Parts: sequence; C-alpha cells; structure tokens
Amino acid sequence: MADKFQVRFMPDNRSAIVEKGVTLAEAARQADVFVKNLCGGEGVCGQCRVKILSGSVEPDEQSMAFFSQEELESGYVLACQTEVLDNLEVLIPPETRMEDAKIMIAEVEEGREGLTTVPIVRKIYLELPQPTIEDNVSDIARVSRGLRKKLGWHSYEISLSCLRRLSENLRDADFKITASVAKDKNRYKILRIDKGDTSHQTYGLAVDVGTTTVVAQLVEMGSGKVLGVAGSPNQQASFGEDVISRTIYACKEGGLNPVHEAVIKNINELISQLTSEKNLSPEDIMAIVAAGNTTMSHLLLGLLPCSIRLEPYVPTADVYPQIFAREIGININPEGILETLPSVSSYVGGDIVAGVLACGISESPQVQGLIDIGTNGEIAIGNLDWLVCCSASAGPAFEGGGTRCGMRATRGAIEKVEISGDQVSYQTIGNAKPRGICGSGLIDCIYELVKNQIILPDGKFNKDCKDPRLTVADDIPQYTIAYPEETETGEPIVITQSDIDNLMKSKGAIFAAIKSLVDYIGLSFDSIETFYVAGGFGSYLDIEKSIAIGLLPDIPKERIKFIGNSSLTGARYCLLSEAALEKSVVISRSMTNIELSAYQPFMDEFVAALFLPHTDRRLFPSVDY
Amino acid sequence: MADKFQVRFMPDNRSAIVEKGVTLAEAARQADVFVKNLCGGEGVCGQCRVKILSGSVEPDEQSMAFFSQEELESGYVLACQTEVLDNLEVLIPPETRMEDAKIMIAEVEEGREGLTTVPIVRKIYLELPQPTIEDNVSDIARVSRGLRKKLGWHSYEISLSCLRRLSENLRDADFKITASVAKDKNRYKILRIDKGDTSHQTYGLAVDVGTTTVVAQLVEMGSGKVLGVAGSPNQQASFGEDVISRTIYACKEGGLNPVHEAVIKNINELISQLTSEKNLSPEDIMAIVAAGNTTMSHLLLGLLPCSIRLEPYVPTADVYPQIFAREIGININPEGILETLPSVSSYVGGDIVAGVLACGISESPQVQGLIDIGTNGEIAIGNLDWLVCCSASAGPAFEGGGTRCGMRATRGAIEKVEISGDQVSYQTIGNAKPRGICGSGLIDCIYELVKNQIILPDGKFNKDCKDPRLTVADDIPQYTIAYPEETETGEPIVITQSDIDNLMKSKGAIFAAIKSLVDYIGLSFDSIETFYVAGGFGSYLDIEKSIAIGLLPDIPKERIKFIGNSSLTGARYCLLSEAALEKSVVISRSMTNIELSAYQPFMDEFVAALFLPHTDRRLFPSVDY
Repeated sequence: MADKFQVRFMPDNRSAIVEKGVTLAEAARQADVFVKNLCGGEGVCGQCRVKILSGSVEPDEQSMAFFSQEELESGYVLACQTEVLDNLEVLIPPETRMEDAKIMIAEVEEGREGLTTVPIVRKIYLELPQPTIEDNVSDIARVSRGLRKKLGWHSYEISLSCLRRLSENLRDADFKITASVAKDKNRYKILRIDKGDTSHQTYGLAVDVGTTTVVAQLVEMGSGKVLGVAGSPNQQASFGEDVISRTIYACKEGGLNPVHEAVIKNINELISQLTSEKNLSPEDIMAIVAAGNTTMSHLLLGLLPCSIRLEPYVPTADVYPQIFAREIGININPEGILETLPSVSSYVGGDIVAGVLACGISESPQVQGLIDIGTNGEIAIGNLDWLVCCSASAGPAFEGGGTRCGMRATRGAIEKVEISGDQVSYQTIGNAKPRGICGSGLIDCIYELVKNQIILPDGKFNKDCKDPRLTVADDIPQYTIAYPEETETGEPIVITQSDIDNLMKSKGAIFAAIKSLVDYIGLSFDSIETFYVAGGFGSYLDIEKSIAIGLLPDIPKERIKFIGNSSLTGARYCLLSEAALEKSVVISRSMTNIELSAYQPFMDEFVAALFLPHTDRRLFPSVDY
Repeated sequence: MADKFQVRFMPDNRSAIVEKGVTLAEAARQADVFVKNLCGGEGVCGQCRVKILSGSVEPDEQSMAFFSQEELESGYVLACQTEVLDNLEVLIPPETRMEDAKIMIAEVEEGREGLTTVPIVRKIYLELPQPTIEDNVSDIARVSRGLRKKLGWHSYEISLSCLRRLSENLRDADFKITASVAKDKNRYKILRIDKGDTSHQTYGLAVDVGTTTVVAQLVEMGSGKVLGVAGSPNQQASFGEDVISRTIYACKEGGLNPVHEAVIKNINELISQLTSEKNLSPEDIMAIVAAGNTTMSHLLLGLLPCSIRLEPYVPTADVYPQIFAREIGININPEGILETLPSVSSYVGGDIVAGVLACGISESPQVQGLIDIGTNGEIAIGNLDWLVCCSASAGPAFEGGGTRCGMRATRGAIEKVEISGDQVSYQTIGNAKPRGICGSGLIDCIYELVKNQIILPDGKFNKDCKDPRLTVADDIPQYTIAYPEETETGEPIVITQSDIDNLMKSKGAIFAAIKSLVDYIGLSFDSIETFYVAGGFGSYLDIEKSIAIGLLPDIPKERIKFIGNSSLTGARYCLLSEAALEKSVVISRSMTNIELSAYQPFMDEFVAALFLPHTDRRLFPSVDY
C-alpha cells in the first residue's frame, strides 16, 4: 500500500485513497470536494490555495510565488501543483471553497402565448383492433395506423430494439398499448411501446448547462407544470473555472472525457434529486432539452471544443442531432431522448437562442434586445423579421476573476456597496462575513467611487483625494472596502487601480458590442422597445448604476427588464412544444452573427467606451455626475 | 472432467467437447458438422439418423420406431433424441449429411433498364474550403454545404459518434475528406467521414437469405460489377429444416437467439470468404441488402416470427428499418448499413418483392407472372398498374420431404428420370451413386409413370400393370427407380403410392393458387405474356413435364422463363440503386395479397387439380397422354 495514500480534506472531513503522485486537486476531485480553480490546473491563477495540516509534501517552486513567507511556513500550497507522496490532512480555506453558490433558478415570468402545447415526446394510448384474417397487416403497420388516427398522417419509424419487443408487447397487452412518440425534424419516431395505458405519466427535464452552474427543471409534459427545480455548481469547474481553461483541458490528450463526464454527473445528480423528491424514478423521464453556450453544448455531447477557441472560431456543430440520452450516459428512460438547443456561432450558443425564444423577440413586431453578461457578453437584437447577434469577450471581472479580491457571487461575496464620505456600507450574500467582492459589488463600487470623485471619469484614482481608505501598496493605489477585522479571512478587501482598469475594459467591451450592433442595423437605442438582461449576474445588477458607469445604454429604466434564467425557460418551452423546438432551429439559422474580433467599428467603440460613463457624454444624458 | 465428453464425428473427423447430457444433434452443431433435421429436434421426422461407432449411449424409445432391429443392433440412433453420456465416435451416414448442395447463384440474365445508378451508400470526396473569419460556419454545416453541391439540397443527418470525430478528421486531413452517405426514406445520413479520398472504394453485399441456402454477392458499388458470389447451406437447418419447424424452435423460451445467430454466422462466413478472395477487408463493405421470405427476414433481424405461423398470420413488420449491420452482429464496416427488403404479408416476403423488381413486372405494360416453388409456392401477377399475389402451402414434396426416398437437390439426388418399358434411366446430381430423389426427379417420375400408364390420371397405381418394378410392400404399392445394388446406401430407391399422393397435393396446390389468382383478376392464362419461374427448384424443372402433370399452366413453352435466383438479383438492384430500393417499398405496399386459406375458390380449384393433368382437360390442350 506504499504507493497509495489517504488524503483527508477539512473542514468537510471527506477523504480519498489515491495513487502516489496524483495532485491534490485530483485527490479533491476523487473525494468530491470542491477546490477553486480558474486556470485549469496550469498553476498560474493561484486560486487553488490549500493548507497542509498533517503529512509532508515537497515544496513546489511555482507555488511559492503565490504565497507570503508566513503562508509557506504555515503549509500553504497550490492544490494543482502539489503531489501526494504521504498520507495527508488538508484544509480548504474559505477563499478556495465553492459553496452556497447563488444559483439562478428564477426565470422569465410571463408565460409565452401562442405556442402550441405539443410536447416533444408524447405518450399515446391506443386500443388497437385485434388482427383477423381480413385485417392481418403487420404489427408495426397496425400501430402506425392507430397513431395516424390520433396524430395525423406521418411516417412512423421504429428502432430495431423496440421492434423486437413489439410482437410480444402487443399480444401480452391484448393490443392495448401506449406508444411514446417523438418528432425528429420531419419524421416521427416510436421510442417505446408500453403495455396498457401509461399515457398519464410523461415527464421531461429542461436543463440550463451554464459554465458556472447547471440548473434542471422537472416538468410534467402533459400539463406543462413545473414539479421542481434544482441546481448545482458545474463540476467541470475542477478542470478550469472559465470556458477557455476548460477548453484547454479538454483538448489535451485524454482530456475530453473527464470534462464531458463531469457535467453528465451533474445532470444525473440533479435528475436523481428531482425525481426522488417527487417519488418518481429517472426512468419516468422521456425527454431532456438542454441549453448552453456553444462550448458547454459541445462538452455535454462529448464533441471536441478545440476549434471554437481559436480563430476563425469554428464549432463542430451548430444544430445538434437528437440523441438517446443514454448515448452520453444520462440516466433517464433508456429510450428517452435529448435535444440540445442549436447554436448560432462559436460564441453565441443555445442559451442565447433559448433566451430569444423565451423573451419572444423573434415574434415581436417591435425591435427588442437581449443581453447576457458573463465572461462573454452575448447580445441579440431583432424582431419577427430579422435577428442579429454578437459576442464580446468581457474578461472575468464580472465573474469575480482578474480582480485582487474578486470572487463569484457565492456566500460571503460583497454584492452591494454604498460610499458616503469615508464610510462604506456593503451587503454580502448570505449576510456572511465578507470574503471578497462579486461582479455586482464591483459595479456598485466603481459607481460609488466615481460619484464620490475618488476616481475620475478616466477611471484613474483622484490624486487629490484625501480619503483615508485610499492608500498605495507596491506603488499601486488601492481603496479599502472592508478592513481586516471585518472580513472572514482577516485580510482587507480592496479594489486596486488595476482592478478598475480591468473593469473599465469589461464594461467598455459590453457597451461597445451593444453600440456596434445597434449601429450595424442602423438604429438608435431609442428604437429598442425592451432590453432584456439575462443570466445570474444580471439579476443582481443595479440598473441605474449600470447605466451610470456606461455598461448598459442610457434608455428609460422601465425598458430594461431582468429576466433571470432565460436559457432554462427557453429549454422548457422547447420541451413542451414541438413548434418551439423547431422555432429554435429557425432562430439559430436566421440570426446574423457579427464576428466582432474582425469588425473595425467595434475596436473604435471599445476605445471610446473606456471612460465613465463614455467619451461621448451625449450618449448618457441621464447621468448626473 | 467426468461431466464433459468428447464426441467425434466421422467421416469429417471433427469433434467437440460437450457437457454431459446434451444431445448428439447439439454436439454436432458445436463441432460444426451438419446433421439433417426436418422436425426441429422433436424426434418425429427420423432424418437425423447417426451410427454410434464407439462409446455407449442409452437406447431411446422414440428412436426405436425409426430403425430396423438390425440397424439398432449396429448402433443407429436419432441424433436429436440421444444424450451424450460417454466419449463417443459417431458416424454420420450419407443419407444424413447435407453436402455439396446445389446453390442457386445464377440469376436473371438481362440487365434492368431505366434504373438510376445511385447506390444506397455513396462515398463522396470533398475538398472543402478552409474556414476563415468571414466563413466560419460549423464543421457539419461546411460538410453539408459540400454535399449539397454534389448531391443536391437535402438535409444531412449525422450520428453522435461520427460527429464526435468530425473536428479532428477535418483538420487532420486539411479539409479533404470522403463522406459516406446513405439515403434512408426521405433523408440523407452521413455514416462516416474518412480522411482524404477513399471514394474509389465502395463495396456492397447483396444477400439472398433462403430457407435452405444463403447466397451472397460482393459488388463494387460504383461500377455495379459483381466481384464474387458464394453460398452455403442455411445453418438454421440444425434447428429445423423448414420454416415451420424453425419458427417453432425460435418461439420456444430462449429459442430466438440461436436461430437468429445461426444465419448471422452464415453471412459473416460468406463475407469473410468473399472479401479475402478479393484481398479486401469486411470493413470495406458499407452496405448490405438482404432479401428473404418473411420468416427469414424476421429471424435475420431477431424479430419473433411466432404470429406469422398462426392464423391470422401477422408478421411483426412488413417494411423493415434501415439499421447498422453491427446491430445484428454482421461484421462489415461499423458504420455500414443493412436494408432488408420489405414483405407483402406473412407468406409473401422480400424475396418475391425482389423477384418482381428483378423481372421488371411492376414496370411492364404487359401482364406478367412470377412463381417461386418450394415448400410454399408464392405467385405474383401484375403489370405497371397493378400487382396481386398469394402463397400456397405445397408441402415438402418438392424439397425432398414427405417422400420415402426424397432428398434435397444435393449430391447423389436423382434429378432426371426416363422410363421406357421396364427400363429406368436416371441422372444424379454430381453423377454420384444415387442416394435418393429430389423434387425435379419426382416430377419426371410422375410424368413418366403416367405416360407409361403405370399410374392412372387419378394418381393411383394401375392394378393391371405387370411391370416387375411395381411391387407391394406392407400393403402399399411402390415402384422401384433404383435397385439396391445401384445405390450408395444399398437400399432401393422407390416411389410409393403415398409419395405420389403427396406429390399430387403439392402440384395441385400450386396450380390451384395460380388459377385462383388468374381468375381473381378476371384474366385467362393466355393474357399472361411471360411466366417467370424462380428459385433453385425451378431451374432444374422440365417445362413440358411440369405442364404435363398439371403443375404449370399450359401456355406456350417460350413464355415460361427460368430466372434463377431472382431474390439475389433484386437485392443487388436495390444495393445499386436508391430508386430500386424505394420501388421495392412501393411494390410491397401496392401488391394485393389474397389469403388463400380463407378463399373458397382456391379450395375448389385444389380439389379439381388433384388429377393428372387436371379434372378439366380443356385447361391442358397440349397434353397428349
């Protein structure tokens, strides 16, 4: 047993027996313990800080740069760079945990009108006439005839495995059977034949496969009733917290499968949780519709995402085949299907298509817009006649990355900030002691800093400002939001000049993308009737402050609507409506994608937007500082 | 090792180690030795006679009835009723062997005109443009675009497994790839993407899955050239020689799989043989088209054939799904497909549909007929406007069953007979010493007997005949064709009154079926331009004698054409032509099936046909005895 060691992780007190030489990050994965990780295990983000409590490890040069002498002496190492060579007890400190993530399960509130309510899998009960010598058509012809009476004149296809059981099923059940039928493009498939009438039970699952979180909704397909919703952090995060680092991991030799399987595990756990809550079995689920960005959709299906990342940004597929969920290891009914909502391009995915569908933009006579802000900002604008979209890389600032004290919107994150003189008041997620500051907190911060003239409209700290919270460390000015005695870690929470520079670039990229798209179609912001803001981040934004720093366009507040998880809503619409699913393909195919990386007007707009609120003040008439 | 024994079969000198208590029939199967078997192991046909050379067996009551005292003493037993309880050496005597079967590999000679030559799987070489930032559609969209340029505007579907390799395949091959494309109903499937240009190599297999023999043709799909043809006895015969006994076996608990797998083994062996002859690999084959009667098609696909056999004669399927050949264990390219030609009804199968297609009946302005004579006689009549068909049970007489000295058309079978006075001259298959008499020999026999007034037109032996070959044994008159000293077994070859009675019923059923069908459509025999006679049995028939005994209708000889294995020809047409495959479905759906078992005119015709040539002599004006 000298080549296997036990690694115990605190405070969860979970352990794994691992091979000698695997990394602590891998050991944590095996112990089902979450360790933060932005870079995908490259040892460059310094997020996977852990502390060795007992047992010995070899010091690693790369780790040293991330820790003070004191920290090194007390046993801090990077989990991704440290090999297991001994039995170990390891502490995962608060800043490295991923806990109590705020998972966006709220959605578009208004129900969509005008969608036919024909779910993508239907269970049809048939009482077929017994064969006679005058009517001795084949079994499958008899079933098809019965289905045609109920569903219309279609050609019904059947898999060999289903056909093999048909003869016995029909006769055992005295020709009273329930056929589960799914439409796939222009044809109908018979998925299963059950004995007797099981048509009252048809369940489906809508899944939003987000980079950060995976959210699933259990739906009764006949009534459209949502029976439950649950979410969990995307377990792919252990291979890299953002899309790019996960892509890099997946494109290494042997890297695709673990990343693919991680999200399958997520979904299977959510299925297990949701069905057991309702005393159902996973077998009761006959259909899943999944929506995600293009990389998430590729990883879900086990498609290589490698060419997505590199110019000219080519995905393997935009429209994905309908598959049996079992083909990718998802544990529902063995004949149950999975539809993945179509993408538009490498950086405008099925989540945006779902959002456009959920908001009804593609059926609106008025021009409407949708924006989903994350590491990328995806923007779609259009109406029932046309649709355009683009995606801009916003950097990780809004998700808590690239910022000294940044963190995701999880427990302990400062999400709201107000500054009055030298007094700072803030609000944290879960009302916990602050551990860092998340995207919405950063936006508040910038707004409050510029309003109080602590930073100037060019985003630089005001050298004339005498605020005691404004200090200089290592030649870089910084502003203290929370003093050490206020925080969980005992370290101060600060915002530095370089944090602000990053945030300026992020907000500039988003605004420049919106502006470029509006200009491209020859409209003004005024002509956009409604601007939907989607996604987890959006829901916690302060609209006025977001406009005031020049992130969102300066249009009347009531025309900006937070719509929560529109990706989930769109997925559910497609689950409950064949027509919606078909519409999603039409949307993805008809949406014109502007590739901003090759679009000069975007570069110009980006430079012009690196100011608070903007170099062109006429664009922000309502901003009063 | 006391519960396993070795059983060695002579003269092949092949052995198997088997569990104690299995039957000799099963041991023979395991040793890959063929033992005749008509009843499917029920111990009622007495065909599986074998002789124990060494080792002891327990005598079986059921066996005793089939052997003389002398035979029992010399060690004869029934293989299906005798358990292995010792190490054994077993002789399979000549009459129990199935060897040198004449396998019908000849086919329709004239090539069909007007069939488009678009094989059902095509390999299309594409040199795709490299993606650029202006043209960064998804990989699958790029492939589809390339295919549309060559094959027209279709929607191309792709399996998940093929999609998963697409990105790497395209980039490794610098976007120069070969797509294998198959049509399935109204859509196109991309089966494989190969790197570079492999479009010159596309091979396919046409298979006639006959009850007695399985014949396969290896075809180069581009040119349509037949590279090789091979056949072997259907290995299902060890579970019952005819369709009914195999069905009974397959419908026992656990019986389906062995019968299904036996024919798969046949096909895999033929594939292995045909490809190695041409220095190809089974992987080079991308498509198979199989034609067989309805039961054979069901057993090929692993569908339960149970309801086919019993009134109201309902098959599981008439049109079969396109499947991957690997789904049923056929060893060709893993992405290669298998199409099974559609049936019309339980007793008019894909072999007849293939025949109608091969003969061009469904495109002929004149009315034509097709007849396939075996245990069942299947008849189809029609032209380009209409098609009717029926099937009559002829009994096993034409296949050598139900007749004292009957045997299949294999080595040693008397296939031609002439009687002149008390002299009989005959011809055997392979010019071997006679072992028995096959179907065509029996027809000759009856004709010669009635012509020489040894039997009378009512089919009974002429009591006034003084021919020394006409004797009485056990009160039953019999006529000796070959004396013991002439035969391989040392037993005489005779034809008994009961053999003749059976043969009268067989020929009567076939003629009654033809007559009923012609009457049903309100035509006379004269209006049938050509009568095609298909199948192995047909090819060795003497037309004039067949007419003279009232088996075939009395039409001018030149209008009756033997067309050999039209099932194989039709299958090959469908392999080489999407249009032909689609036509086969149209034929199967448009052909009106008359269920003779419920059709009173057939009963009347049957009774009227139990005479030589017929009770209504006006139907046979050319017959001169």
